[in-house]
Amino acid sequence: MQRAEANISYRDYFPFWNKLTDNEKDLTERNTRILKYLKGESIHSGGHDCLGMMVVKSGSLRAYILSDEGRDITLYRLFKGDICILSASCVLKYITFDVFVDAEEDSEVILLSSSIFSQLMESNINVECFAYKQATQSFSNVMWALQQILFMSFDKRLALFLSEEIKKTGGDTVSLTHEQVARYMGSAREVVSRMLKYFVSEGIVELSRGDIKIINKKKLLELV
Amino acid sequence: MQRAEANISYRDYFPFWNKLTDNEKDLTERNTRILKYLKGESIHSGGHDCLGMMVVKSGSLRAYILSDEGRDITLYRLFKGDICILSASCVLKYITFDVFVDAEEDSEVILLSSSIFSQLMESNINVECFAYKQATQSFSNVMWALQQILFMSFDKRLALFLSEEIKKTGGDTVSLTHEQVARYMGSAREVVSRMLKYFVSEGIVELSRGDIKIINKKKLLELV
Repeated sequence: MQRAEANISYRDYFPFWNKLTDNEKDLTERNTRILKYLKGESIHSGGHDCLGMMVVKSGSLRAYILSDEGRDITLYRLFKGDICILSASCVLKYITFDVFVDAEEDSEVILLSSSIFSQLMESNINVECFAYKQATQSFSNVMWALQQILFMSFDKRLALFLSEEIKKTGGDTVSLTHEQVARYMGSAREVVSRMLKYFVSEGIVELSRGDIKIINKKKLLELV
Repeated sequence: MQRAEANISYRDYFPFWNKLTDNEKDLTERNTRILKYLKGESIHSGGHDCLGMMVVKSGSLRAYILSDEGRDITLYRLFKGDICILSASCVLKYITFDVFVDAEEDSEVILLSSSIFSQLMESNINVECFAYKQATQSFSNVMWALQQILFMSFDKRLALFLSEEIKKTGGDTVSLTHEQVARYMGSAREVVSRMLKYFVSEGIVELSRGDIKIINKKKLLELV
């Protein structure tokens, strides 16, 4: 993690900016900074730290939960302009669970420290309301993931995952190992490999080292 | 579902009561009623209906999600005094998923209709804030359930521990404090207490000072 100089357009990044008093705006400006993270770096680790409210400036973040045995399940991803509120969970008393957040690629985040964020929530009900609305939005994201995990058959889920990956990159190739795909999908490597082999036999994908190339997008989307 | 005559102590049931104006209090009183449900009756079915904000007056409710194939997963239960906000999800724009709510036993709920609740949220930021705090609390409940379901360890482990303890003593009571159980299991007291509370709600154990009494051994062993 590396700090970058702050050159921040607050009103673009903080939706509650116009509801702040001049004093609160000043306080916010003095306590906001930009942090840089490298791909794979941990940003937030459950109850152990509590950086504050974040906005993604560039790159992408992944929020996940972790079992005692180290199994992880992706809850949602955050991209440019998205707000990460669970990294300030220590100041949100209605949040009683732990999540983890990693940088999924080299990323910059705008951070408003948790102590100042807490102070603003205390002094300005608009900020408090904003925080819990954001948390509720995360709730909706998590419910979506939960339904994918619990209810969808695995071929559908994998097809959906691959189609969303290529939508993001605009190409036809997903550059992830089976292990990584399994981790993102909350599954096991063997399950992913087996299903990909089936997709190969169906003429949907081609596999090479570390790459999954979609060769029949139409058939892939029919599965979704 | 059957209506009962309204005789409601608003300030006890609606946490935002003291933040309402006289007009808003009047509006709330005129649009609150008590509904009675029989055990097993459906109260809320996803996006199809949207009764409003509910408070459990007696009995208990179960919130769950349902797959296309009819598989259901319990998200949480609500008991006397608990607030059900997801039954007003149509007026909470940050909630984009569907849940179902049933009466788990004969129950009475106090209902503030969704149209009036929406009107109050619009006119009074304290009510809006209250709604999203409640939604965030549901989020925490769901995350707890999710971790049980996905990582499936602690409920099994605790059930195993208790069943082995009663096997040792030959009775049906484990005379250990939650602190002691936690120590034996390499866990934390709060984790043990929370899971035991869940076991109580499932009718598996009864708790008294320093004692854990197994009241449904069959159900306990099914967990193992």
